[in-house]
Amino acid sequence: MGTSAVQSRTIAFIGLGIMGSPMAANLVRAGHTVVGHNRSRPPVDRLVEAGGRAADSVAAAVAEADVVITMLPADPQVTEVVLGESGVLAHARPGTLVIDMSSVSPRTAVAIAEAGRDKGVRVLDAPVSGGEAGAVEAVLSIMVGGDAADFAEAEPLFGALGTTVVHVGPHGAGQTVKAANQLIVAVNIQALAEAVVFLEKAGADLPSALEVLGGGLAGSTVLARKKDAMLNRDFKPGFRIDLHHKDMGIVTDAARATGAVLPLGALTAQLMAAARAGGDGPLDHSALLRGVERLSGRTPE
Amino acid sequence: MGTSAVQSRTIAFIGLGIMGSPMAANLVRAGHTVVGHNRSRPPVDRLVEAGGRAADSVAAAVAEADVVITMLPADPQVTEVVLGESGVLAHARPGTLVIDMSSVSPRTAVAIAEAGRDKGVRVLDAPVSGGEAGAVEAVLSIMVGGDAADFAEAEPLFGALGTTVVHVGPHGAGQTVKAANQLIVAVNIQALAEAVVFLEKAGADLPSALEVLGGGLAGSTVLARKKDAMLNRDFKPGFRIDLHHKDMGIVTDAARATGAVLPLGALTAQLMAAARAGGDGPLDHSALLRGVERLSGRTPE
Amino acid sequence: MGTSAVQSRTIAFIGLGIMGSPMAANLVRAGHTVVGHNRSRPPVDRLVEAGGRAADSVAAAVAEADVVITMLPADPQVTEVVLGESGVLAHARPGTLVIDMSSVSPRTAVAIAEAGRDKGVRVLDAPVSGGEAGAVEAVLSIMVGGDAADFAEAEPLFGALGTTVVHVGPHGAGQTVKAANQLIVAVNIQALAEAVVFLEKAGADLPSALEVLGGGLAGSTVLARKKDAMLNRDFKPGFRIDLHHKDMGIVTDAARATGAVLPLGALTAQLMAAARAGGDGPLDHSALLRGVERLSGRTPE
Amino acid sequence: MGTSAVQSRTIAFIGLGIMGSPMAANLVRAGHTVVGHNRSRPPVDRLVEAGGRAADSVAAAVAEADVVITMLPADPQVTEVVLGESGVLAHARPGTLVIDMSSVSPRTAVAIAEAGRDKGVRVLDAPVSGGEAGAVEAVLSIMVGGDAADFAEAEPLFGALGTTVVHVGPHGAGQTVKAANQLIVAVNIQALAEAVVFLEKAGADLPSALEVLGGGLAGSTVLARKKDAMLNRDFKPGFRIDLHHKDMGIVTDAARATGAVLPLGALTAQLMAAARAGGDGPLDHSALLRGVERLSGRTPE
Repeated sequence: MGTSAVQSRTIAFIGLGIMGSPMAANLVRAGHTVVGHNRSRPPVDRLVEAGGRAADSVAAAVAEADVVITMLPADPQVTEVVLGESGVLAHARPGTLVIDMSSVSPRTAVAIAEAGRDKGVRVLDAPVSGGEAGAVEAVLSIMVGGDAADFAEAEPLFGALGTTVVHVGPHGAGQTVKAANQLIVAVNIQALAEAVVFLEKAGADLPSALEVLGGGLAGSTVLARKKDAMLNRDFKPGFRIDLHHKDMGIVTDAARATGAVLPLGALTAQLMAAARAGGDGPLDHSALLRGVERLSGRTPE
Repeated sequence: MGTSAVQSRTIAFIGLGIMGSPMAANLVRAGHTVVGHNRSRPPVDRLVEAGGRAADSVAAAVAEADVVITMLPADPQVTEVVLGESGVLAHARPGTLVIDMSSVSPRTAVAIAEAGRDKGVRVLDAPVSGGEAGAVEAVLSIMVGGDAADFAEAEPLFGALGTTVVHVGPHGAGQTVKAANQLIVAVNIQALAEAVVFLEKAGADLPSALEVLGGGLAGSTVLARKKDAMLNRDFKPGFRIDLHHKDMGIVTDAARATGAVLPLGALTAQLMAAARAGGDGPLDHSALLRGVERLSGRTPE
Repeated sequence: MGTSAVQSRTIAFIGLGIMGSPMAANLVRAGHTVVGHNRSRPPVDRLVEAGGRAADSVAAAVAEADVVITMLPADPQVTEVVLGESGVLAHARPGTLVIDMSSVSPRTAVAIAEAGRDKGVRVLDAPVSGGEAGAVEAVLSIMVGGDAADFAEAEPLFGALGTTVVHVGPHGAGQTVKAANQLIVAVNIQALAEAVVFLEKAGADLPSALEVLGGGLAGSTVLARKKDAMLNRDFKPGFRIDLHHKDMGIVTDAARATGAVLPLGALTAQLMAAARAGGDGPLDHSALLRGVERLSGRTPE
Repeated sequence: MGTSAVQSRTIAFIGLGIMGSPMAANLVRAGHTVVGHNRSRPPVDRLVEAGGRAADSVAAAVAEADVVITMLPADPQVTEVVLGESGVLAHARPGTLVIDMSSVSPRTAVAIAEAGRDKGVRVLDAPVSGGEAGAVEAVLSIMVGGDAADFAEAEPLFGALGTTVVHVGPHGAGQTVKAANQLIVAVNIQALAEAVVFLEKAGADLPSALEVLGGGLAGSTVLARKKDAMLNRDFKPGFRIDLHHKDMGIVTDAARATGAVLPLGALTAQLMAAARAGGDGPLDHSALLRGVERLSGRTPE
């Protein structure tokens, strides 16, 4: 805000998957020195082609970095890569800013922050939403937990990755908000799925019904974006049931830990588990529709 | 569409309550002859002041009408006023178009259509959403069930009442879509309420969390419109729990009749009933938040 | 109690189905004059063979009776047979004791009692549990609502039909207790079904697991009687899902009317509806197991 | 079976709490040499008074033992005491039989069994039900997972502790069955609680209603044992909500791990969490009734 030039930083980027690769490339594009590491080599080579640098180990990536970003699948990988014996905290210089952008439990985020404090390393949790497309186009939403000063320092970097960047509270709060996002999205999809089966069973014209529903208080981003998937029973992901199932585990665990009681959340978590058990794990989460169809005596197409 | 002048009709308007009064006035404003009837007299007088005419009975209102519109609280009133001994169908001329704009069960809508057919009267079910404000400003959404030709004839009238007017299927389909609307809205509010308690219990900053949630896939009209009510615990209606409870009864009954299985819908109906049992019936439906707070061990403010 | 001889009564028995036929025969056996009526003729003929008398109409059956017992499928039949133009109340003599032993809503029971009062006819609601076997062997449980004096008068008759006969409150209370019975049974079956799938998925030895479960606080009549059905996937009724689905409608409606909030009841009602939608309506209610299997990704045998 | 004398063993008993103390005493009484260890000293002294021996550490207790029994509060304690650096497996002699009688997750039971195999130590999981009274009177139900030969060897010891002793499958199966027990018990209590509020709201006579319900298919050990607690609103434990809440966490986690979908189980876990959040954690689990009362608009006494 007001600065014409973003300061160039040396960033270690660990985890170059579907999300991490385009994010790292966007940081290169923004003028940063990005040192990438990944369990398998090809994504690292692609980062080098895009102007980044390669590191053979977490230790090598982290050694000279001002900032370390991790973007990994789930809690076990983050725990190992950040807290493990040859992990980020073991090799980061004091004062380094470590930003975990993976989606993990708030508990893991807090554990990392506490371990960082012991090592003199600053930590932010900064999970994202917006999917692969959001990562490629640098229009992610980024929910950040941690100290305000660290957030301020990281904000220019986040600006290269997303358009909505919000500091939502202390360590873990970013993950909490991400979990709340996944909770609302899952329930809203399931609500839409129940409405679709309800409408079809009663003989309403579904496309025109969804049109009018979308224009009123029942309207939602889920309805706008998932309507066609449901109308056409085209459940190519998008965001897979398998991943949302993982996230519902984070939601229900975190709710249990804090004493928040979530009747719809818990029931939706079961319906997500049923979708997965029914073989729909690789489909887009809008395929929760198939579960309502099964419950209502239909064989999903 | 393309006609520069809307044909003036003689419309009997029965039920001049919070919704019916401004709707009737809007029809007067659009150039129609509106003959109003209401159980109590004052709203009729106000319609006369606005340029309408008064009728002392349903029979008198209906006698000379081309079109009859009913806008009544619930199934029992509609059944009595339309199907009763001194009701609409008993006195309407053959060929009259009867439009029930109340929110009732699809079953009642179908029963009226069948009774109308026996009398040579055409029937549409055309419930609305958008509330009192939508009625006053003529920006309602109108969901219409019935024959296409009747819909086409009624469309200019609907145009004086709302901005989204959609023919959604055969007799009863309007009510089905309205019920689906109430289903989605209730579930989406409950989802938001669970997320709010989840976020607060975990110590996230609620205003900024809701800001970022609103910008992503968790965004919804419910979130946009009910966010402040939840942040400020200000549950002045709006749309009352008592009414939404009535509507959830329609949803669950209609689902049962067609074999649609709605796990979240049924559970949300219980939570709506709990809100009412807890004394929150007169509050806005965003007060479902108070139920989640009670479940989570808090005494709602 | 204390009376060595039960007074012989003239009883009109209307509804000679699976339950009504053996019940009427047991009343004959106990020394009563039983005048039977049924929509179809063959069961009436069988009653005559068993020592009863035949009536061609409700009016004829009721005309000379001291006591009228109705045993019919559901609310619409009871409403028509008891309250209809050529029904029981239209033809019963003042002072007659009318006992509805069908399973209907408490609301219907209260409506009959009120209509009876207007005609000078006394009414009891007295639904039963115990199934066909219980009816044949005269070991039914009978839950009776109405005035204590009428219950006292009817008790000897009930003694010819069942072994557990309890006055549970005012008009409608018998049906309320029957509904509560169906609520508990449905939930307990669903609980057992979830436990069975849980145990099998985890690789426990199901027969020995159910043995130990049955001996502790998890033990129940449902577990004792339905265990083999679940172990062998042998869902020959017994009590059909279709009937239990009807009863769950009574439960949820009655709960709604009184403001009792039943989260498990409502969810179980949906799962019962799902069983029916999935084609399991004709199976025993222990076939709720098949629904849990479907949810858990198995194709039920 | 067939042996007139049970062989005397040297048993290390770790965890002399409410359950462990009387169990250890019963093993002394059966003629075994019992070496007790507990975090706090007084229970150890009481065991010595009862004829046992004292050990100051896990290592000391385990050193000379043929059999090690652990009876601890939850997963973290079991993990530390059995798998920790100065724990059971670190000090047990090869060939020792380690029996964990705590209630923990099946996952923990399997982890212990695998660690034991690496050390040449045999392991059984053998959680119990029956509560403090069952422990004192040696009438526990014991559900045992592990190898058949090890079960056979342990059976005489179990015979000194309980009356129903069943081998229910491989490692972890004992805990799975215990979890299934807690699932059924929680759901059956919640079902009864919903029925009680339903009956009271409708004006039925509760004591007579519960009497008749207990005699039919709705009968259960829960109904028999918890009826008075509910009738009198006397929720002195018994088994505390806090503990059942812990167990519902085990159930939902284990179900998630195996792909068993438990809609009633998950919802009941939320209602148990709500009971705890509402301050009912120290009450008997029959206090789930208070949650249904709150949902139904009553202030529990």
